[in-house]
Amino acid sequence: MLDVCLLGTSGMLPLPNRWLTSLMTRYNGSSLLVDCGEGTQIAIKEKGWSFNPIDVILFTHYHADHISGLPGLLLTIGNSDRKTPVTLIGPKGLIKIVNALRIIAPELPYELQFIELSENSHHFEINGYHIDAFRVMHTVPCYGYSISIPRIGKFDVNKARELNIPQVFWNKLQHGGEVVIEDKVFTSDMVVGAQRKGIKVTYCTDSRPVNAISLNAADSDLFICEGMYGENDKECKAKENRHMTFEEAAKLAREANVKELWLTHFSPSLIRPADYIDNIKTIFSNVCVGADGKSVILHFEE
Amino acid sequence: MLDVCLLGTSGMLPLPNRWLTSLMTRYNGSSLLVDCGEGTQIAIKEKGWSFNPIDVILFTHYHADHISGLPGLLLTIGNSDRKTPVTLIGPKGLIKIVNALRIIAPELPYELQFIELSENSHHFEINGYHIDAFRVMHTVPCYGYSISIPRIGKFDVNKARELNIPQVFWNKLQHGGEVVIEDKVFTSDMVVGAQRKGIKVTYCTDSRPVNAISLNAADSDLFICEGMYGENDKECKAKENRHMTFEEAAKLAREANVKELWLTHFSPSLIRPADYIDNIKTIFSNVCVGADGKSVILHFEE
Repeated sequence: MLDVCLLGTSGMLPLPNRWLTSLMTRYNGSSLLVDCGEGTQIAIKEKGWSFNPIDVILFTHYHADHISGLPGLLLTIGNSDRKTPVTLIGPKGLIKIVNALRIIAPELPYELQFIELSENSHHFEINGYHIDAFRVMHTVPCYGYSISIPRIGKFDVNKARELNIPQVFWNKLQHGGEVVIEDKVFTSDMVVGAQRKGIKVTYCTDSRPVNAISLNAADSDLFICEGMYGENDKECKAKENRHMTFEEAAKLAREANVKELWLTHFSPSLIRPADYIDNIKTIFSNVCVGADGKSVILHFEE
Repeated sequence: MLDVCLLGTSGMLPLPNRWLTSLMTRYNGSSLLVDCGEGTQIAIKEKGWSFNPIDVILFTHYHADHISGLPGLLLTIGNSDRKTPVTLIGPKGLIKIVNALRIIAPELPYELQFIELSENSHHFEINGYHIDAFRVMHTVPCYGYSISIPRIGKFDVNKARELNIPQVFWNKLQHGGEVVIEDKVFTSDMVVGAQRKGIKVTYCTDSRPVNAISLNAADSDLFICEGMYGENDKECKAKENRHMTFEEAAKLAREANVKELWLTHFSPSLIRPADYIDNIKTIFSNVCVGADGKSVILHFEE
C-alpha cells in the first residue's frame, strides 16, 4: 500500500489555512516529499507524519513557493535524529540553490545526495519507489513526477511443486532470483506469472497542459495536477503565466485515462475553488478539489 | 500612537498554531518588522496587516527560525506593489546572508538597503522610529532592539504671545526649528517645554540575561522578552543554549522598571507556557504569556 497526502494546495503564496502545494507519500517505512515551500514542515507536523523517514525530496522547479521551506525542513529532519543520507532530486541547478539556502542551515547530522535532471525524462528506483521524472512546460525548467509501486506476478505454487522446487527457494524465485538445484537452473519466470498492475500516482505542477503530462500520467490511480484558475476565462492568464485552468487539467486526466484527479496549486485569487468543479465534471467526472491534508491509502487491486 | 503586534511566539521550530517569534509595529503609516522566520508572512496576513508599508526589517540574528521566511516575505512585499526601498538592519553578515537567500527571490520591484551592526550599540532614526540596537549574548552575534517614539515638549502659547511671535511660525518652532523676525532670532526652547515621555518598546530574543538588556529596556512601556523555558530546573539548559527561563526574563523586567512584560520564543517542548506564569508574578507582577497575534496600541500619556 502507498499512503498519499496532499500537504497543501496554495500556489504562489502561503495563505492562512492554505499551505503551499506539496505532496508526501509513505511506502514500506520510507517517505518521499515533492516540493517544500514555506510552511510545508508545519503541514507535515499538522498531518502527524514523521520527519525522520523522509528519504527523498523531489523538486518540480525552484520558484520560491516550491522550495522556500527547505532550510527549515532540513533542520527539522536533523532534529528527528536522522543520520542516514537524504536524496534530493530536481532540475539542473539543484546543488547551487540548495547550497545557497543552506547558509542558514549549514550543519546537518546527515548527508545530502543530489541528482540533477537535464533530460526530457529520467527513471530512478529508490527504496521500492519507481520514480519517473518528465519535463513539463513552465517559465523555468520544471518536471512532473510519476511515483509507482510495481507489483510482481503471482507465484504459481502448483508449478513450483510440479518442478519439485523445495519451498526454501520459493521466496528467491518469487522476487526474480534464480536457483540451481543439482545442476538444474530454475528461473523466476518458470514459477511467476506476468507482472500485475501496481500503484501509480502522478503529480504535476506548474505547467501548461503538454503531451508529456498525459503520456506519463497514463492509467494512474491518482493524478494530482495544478489548477491555478477555476474560471475558463482565465485561460489567457494561464497561458501567459504557464499555468492551467481546471478545464485543461480535466482534459489531461481524460486523455491519460486516470482513475481519479485531484486539483491543487490554486491562485490566491481563487477563494473557493470548489465553486468551479461542477463545470469540468462533464470532461472528467472523478475529479475533486484538493484540500490541505487530503489523504488516500492506495492498495494493490484484489 | 504605536501599534504593536507579536506575530508569533515559537522558538526553534514553527508549529501548528504557533508561528515563529516575530514583532511588527505600525507608526504614522510606516511598518517595522523584527525577524521573519518561516511562516511570518502568513502570520501577518492572518493579522490583516499590510505588506506594502513595511519599510524596515530588523534581525536579531541569523538562526533559521529568525530569517527563513525572508525570501517569501520579500516576494510578497513585491506583490503588494512596493516600489520604494526597504531597509534591512542586522548583525554583520547581513548582506551575504540575504543575497544567498535571494537565489529564490532574485527579482524584486524595489531596492534593498542594508545596515550591518558591529558595535555594542547603534542608534537609528527612520520614519519617526528611534531604534536602539544593543548587543546581547547568544551562541552567535545577536542584538536586542528598543523602538521609541519620542514626544516633543509642550508648546507654550502664552509665551509665544508674550514674545509677539506670529502664529504662522509656531509650528516650525514647535518642531525644533528657529525663526528670524525683524533681525530677532527665536529658538524652539524659548516656547517649547522639556521633552515629554514618549513610547518605548523593547524586544529581546535570543539571549542570556545580560546587563545590556535591562539597561536598554529601562522604563519601557512594553518589554517583549524571550522565555525559552518555563521550568526553573531548565536553567542549566538555558545557560547551555544561551537562552532564558521565565524567571530570568522577569528579573530583567523588574531591574528595567518596565510597565509590562510579554514572554515569547517558547521551546517546542513547552506545550502550555501559561502553566508557569504564576511562579514568576512574585518577581514581576505585570507579566503575561505572549500569544500569536497579541496586540496593543500604545498611546502617549495624557
